Amino acid sequence: MIKKILIANRGEIAVRIVRACAELGIRSVAVYSEADRHGLHVKRADEAYSLGADPLSGYLNPQRLVSLAVETGCDALHPGYGFLSENPRLAELCDEHGIKFIGPSAEVIRRMGDKTEARRSMIAAGVPCTPGTEGNLADLKQAISEAERIGYPVMLKATSGGGGRGIRRCNSREELEQAYPRVISEATKAFGSAEVFLEKCIVNPKHIEAQILADSFGNTVHLYERDCSIQRRNQKLIEIAPSPQLTPEQRAYIGELAVRAAKAVGYENAGTVEFLLTGEEVYFMEMNTRVQVEHTITEEITGIDIVREQIRIASGLPLSVKQEDIHHQGFALQFRINAEDPKNNFFPSFGKITRYYAPGGPGVRTDTAIYTGYVIPPHYDSMCLKLIVRAMTWEEALARGLRALDDMRVHGVKTTTPYYQEILRNPEFRTGEFNTSFVENHPELLEYSEKRRPEQLALAIATAIAAYAGL
Amino acid sequence: MIKKILIANRGEIAVRIVRACAELGIRSVAVYSEADRHGLHVKRADEAYSLGADPLSGYLNPQRLVSLAVETGCDALHPGYGFLSENPRLAELCDEHGIKFIGPSAEVIRRMGDKTEARRSMIAAGVPCTPGTEGNLADLKQAISEAERIGYPVMLKATSGGGGRGIRRCNSREELEQAYPRVISEATKAFGSAEVFLEKCIVNPKHIEAQILADSFGNTVHLYERDCSIQRRNQKLIEIAPSPQLTPEQRAYIGELAVRAAKAVGYENAGTVEFLLTGEEVYFMEMNTRVQVEHTITEEITGIDIVREQIRIASGLPLSVKQEDIHHQGFALQFRINAEDPKNNFFPSFGKITRYYAPGGPGVRTDTAIYTGYVIPPHYDSMCLKLIVRAMTWEEALARGLRALDDMRVHGVKTTTPYYQEILRNPEFRTGEFNTSFVENHPELLEYSEKRRPEQLALAIATAIAAYAGL
Repeated sequence: MIKKILIANRGEIAVRIVRACAELGIRSVAVYSEADRHGLHVKRADEAYSLGADPLSGYLNPQRLVSLAVETGCDALHPGYGFLSENPRLAELCDEHGIKFIGPSAEVIRRMGDKTEARRSMIAAGVPCTPGTEGNLADLKQAISEAERIGYPVMLKATSGGGGRGIRRCNSREELEQAYPRVISEATKAFGSAEVFLEKCIVNPKHIEAQILADSFGNTVHLYERDCSIQRRNQKLIEIAPSPQLTPEQRAYIGELAVRAAKAVGYENAGTVEFLLTGEEVYFMEMNTRVQVEHTITEEITGIDIVREQIRIASGLPLSVKQEDIHHQGFALQFRINAEDPKNNFFPSFGKITRYYAPGGPGVRTDTAIYTGYVIPPHYDSMCLKLIVRAMTWEEALARGLRALDDMRVHGVKTTTPYYQEILRNPEFRTGEFNTSFVENHPELLEYSEKRRPEQLALAIATAIAAYAGL
Repeated sequence: MIKKILIANRGEIAVRIVRACAELGIRSVAVYSEADRHGLHVKRADEAYSLGADPLSGYLNPQRLVSLAVETGCDALHPGYGFLSENPRLAELCDEHGIKFIGPSAEVIRRMGDKTEARRSMIAAGVPCTPGTEGNLADLKQAISEAERIGYPVMLKATSGGGGRGIRRCNSREELEQAYPRVISEATKAFGSAEVFLEKCIVNPKHIEAQILADSFGNTVHLYERDCSIQRRNQKLIEIAPSPQLTPEQRAYIGELAVRAAKAVGYENAGTVEFLLTGEEVYFMEMNTRVQVEHTITEEITGIDIVREQIRIASGLPLSVKQEDIHHQGFALQFRINAEDPKNNFFPSFGKITRYYAPGGPGVRTDTAIYTGYVIPPHYDSMCLKLIVRAMTWEEALARGLRALDDMRVHGVKTTTPYYQEILRNPEFRTGEFNTSFVENHPELLEYSEKRRPEQLALAIATAIAAYAGL
């Protein structure tokens, strides 16, 4: 079993991994930029080391992180999500230094990270993919001719892209001509690669993804699916498990496809296979070779601790469950509470959390690194809290979500909370029938009134008096 | 369906009921003594009404509570636990005023509240009871002759007793002679009845209780059992579901006994049948005719929301589940975090909560009415928070309990938290084999060192400076 893990991340996912380590009796090592000195992951880990003043470069330096793991006597490294979690170089460096990388092999990360390569692997394995180019595009001329063959609208995608970046929809040749240099420039900056390819644009699909786990003994299982159709500009906002939109047959089919996809590339550890659904069609979109932000809801409906399984797998242990023992009960929803002002085009709202109160009671979970007095640094993602609810039925889960959002207090910054309350009250959402166009099609949900709570008023008055009195 | 509920209680259980109301779209009405004006139940309910300056009399006045329910347009009343929850007069008054009492009928409450009457009902239904007197004792002389028949040690019990009061173990005739007038005096003061009876003392039993639900259509189900053997002076400290000590056969037998007991008395709503186990023997102890403090762990292992079911039943709806659909998964533990100093004989430690941080992550639930800045009033029970954890196996649940207790922050008062951490580390406890003598047999678990956290030190220094500077 692994004895000591360096957590190459920050924020709530670093805290999540610290907690898994604590439960497994594994020593945890946090890293932090100076901007993160007061981060909860620093407080909760057994040891913590500074990566220096720059808010980002330390988290993005594979050599530095692996050296630190070696120096501090770690035998494993957990990359979390984002940052270097899908960087094959980090996995390679871990290997070279005798540190277990908690994730798949560098080769698999590389293969699935190259979207054209991933498509090829999936087509070979019989996993349906959207019609598209066979490899990367040579130039704009080829892009235009391929787009005509596939048929507009098409998606122009960076081969190394992800997280909603390096991707553009083109409805016409004109739009493709405009998008082509932009996506190449974006991809070069963001991912260090100018390679792009084309896929048919599936209009208003549902985004369905399946969680898989695979150990080093050849056991590969799926943990059912998540519905992540509630997105804004390709960023997930609310995730649901299982999808209220699937029939049991579709559920079984998608689970089976995900296992087939993972086996085809010799996948090991936790991963997610993302699909687009439209009508009866299912298309492979991409595979994320790391723990997802939304792994929580799968944990809630299956009872399986995914981060624990990740660590067990990397320790060389078999999966603690067999496919036939994996069941799902009820529905779980995750709300990504972002420090943003939905009414101001979701502009980030960083600053001090003057009050944080976690909602409680049955079926409520929070994963967060915020606390009362914490100052959200402006350098990172605006997601500050994940609120997860579970209940026996879809309707009960919606009611619980509304109750928990109402129960929670995050004062000091604007958040997406009131916007999610509006979504939960929307009749179309409540039917469970929606696709990725939901957010775009419902701009009226941003027209909520920001009702002030009495304690907010009290705080505002006290703050005003204190300012007046020079306190 | 019920439309508006008066919650005749305070603290965490009142908050629990407010949350259930919110999820069911039912309006909630809180009541409070002036000492409870800043209670979380007051803040979270839709409406709240003062019961006056006295900290207790309002919560203990059935007429007042029912009148208030009528005046505020409620159609139901939830009594919670403690206070008047097992007072048949409250249920009767509700009936007389057209208010649905969320609990069993006054007649059933009375029958099960009278311990000798309850014993008679159970014996008639074929539920095994401890050997004891057939009815109440006439005098000390009868007590002595009955004790000789039953055999020492015996338990001298108040017929109307409960909550660990009005009960005394007697190992000899001499002890019985001493205890007799004391228990009568205690019972008269606490329960307004001088009636007492004798039962054989089961030495070092396990305390096992089964949760039942019964609707008005004659459906009665059990939700498996809880192990509440970890007690101090008959007060439960840590509860576990299911019991790690039962075989599947014992589990099925106890569930069946509980359903038989409930059916025998025409029980309706949620209730708990408490048993003592010793060796292979199972004895009925008593039935609690209300929601229990520890209902939470049953919710965690079954997924069934017990308070929601209570409200549905009182609304005249059938149970939302059938016995064959009720399964249990994993293990759940509840820690009753009391504002007490374990090192000072568990002396209550009331005062201001200077910091409260709820633990989060997978498998962690909190039910509490405290928040940062809340002042715990000295008039009530010292339990200030229920921390509940669940996991797939007993060992994982223990690890998660330790992690969550460590993750939590309740500053400003002493709590039982460090004592529970010691219990969780104790090898005997970890085997899952223990009985009600565990706490008494392990006084060494109180010898923990109170390690100070850096933030506690920082707070102490800041407080000292502020006091010095007269801030």
